[in-house]
Amino acid sequence: MPDFKLDTRLKGDSHPVVTLGLCRLRLMDDARWPWLLLVPQRAGLVEIFDLSPLDQTLLTFETDLVAKALKHLTGCTKINVGSLGNQVRQLHVHVIARREGDAAWPGPVWGHGEREPYEKSSADALIASLRAAL
Amino acid sequence: MPDFKLDTRLKGDSHPVVTLGLCRLRLMDDARWPWLLLVPQRAGLVEIFDLSPLDQTLLTFETDLVAKALKHLTGCTKINVGSLGNQVRQLHVHVIARREGDAAWPGPVWGHGEREPYEKSSADALIASLRAAL
Repeated sequence: MPDFKLDTRLKGDSHPVVTLGLCRLRLMDDARWPWLLLVPQRAGLVEIFDLSPLDQTLLTFETDLVAKALKHLTGCTKINVGSLGNQVRQLHVHVIARREGDAAWPGPVWGHGEREPYEKSSADALIASLRAAL
Repeated sequence: MPDFKLDTRLKGDSHPVVTLGLCRLRLMDDARWPWLLLVPQRAGLVEIFDLSPLDQTLLTFETDLVAKALKHLTGCTKINVGSLGNQVRQLHVHVIARREGDAAWPGPVWGHGEREPYEKSSADALIASLRAAL
């Protein structure tokens, strides 16, 4: 099996947070929403059902962990979880903290307007809080 | 624990397909995309992490089953899976067959334009195919 290599677009749009058992956890560089990406470190996969049953269970466990931490940190109204991959095919799962009245509420965040990169200090602070919460 | 009762908006926007171990499977009444809903039959839950670890594993298993069947039936380009709940809070998971050039491609389907209900015969035929594929 070929080695896993993070997709260049996912890499360019996000910051590393931590590596979990299955996934790399990354923070999307978009200050409009606290928005995380889980990327299973398995090469060549596109759909969740391309993962083995054990890896699907790990992904479920890691999504649960990350979603709870994000809810706790942000006190958001609703967590949005999604795996679309219409633009970037490398399998990845979005975990996003949504708040009533946020930039896209109540619609989805994907494809909404233009990304607003973080100030470096804000991204660093959020990443530190996430690491502490996990 | 109170009895599970399907949210009235979810009920009004979709047709029953089959009941699985954990979830009711429903077909969204929108002919623009083959679009399924999995609704765990647990009362009062909002987030995936509100499910017990066992129920989360069941949900993962049932999502896998349904996504594979939908991919097989439609030959779609990409399966989209999402749990948003910004408008309807009762926990539900969307499984949608996407094709390059479809009505919202490559954006998400949620909040895109107006729902286009099926002709009754088309919905019945798709539901029969889904039951056979599961």
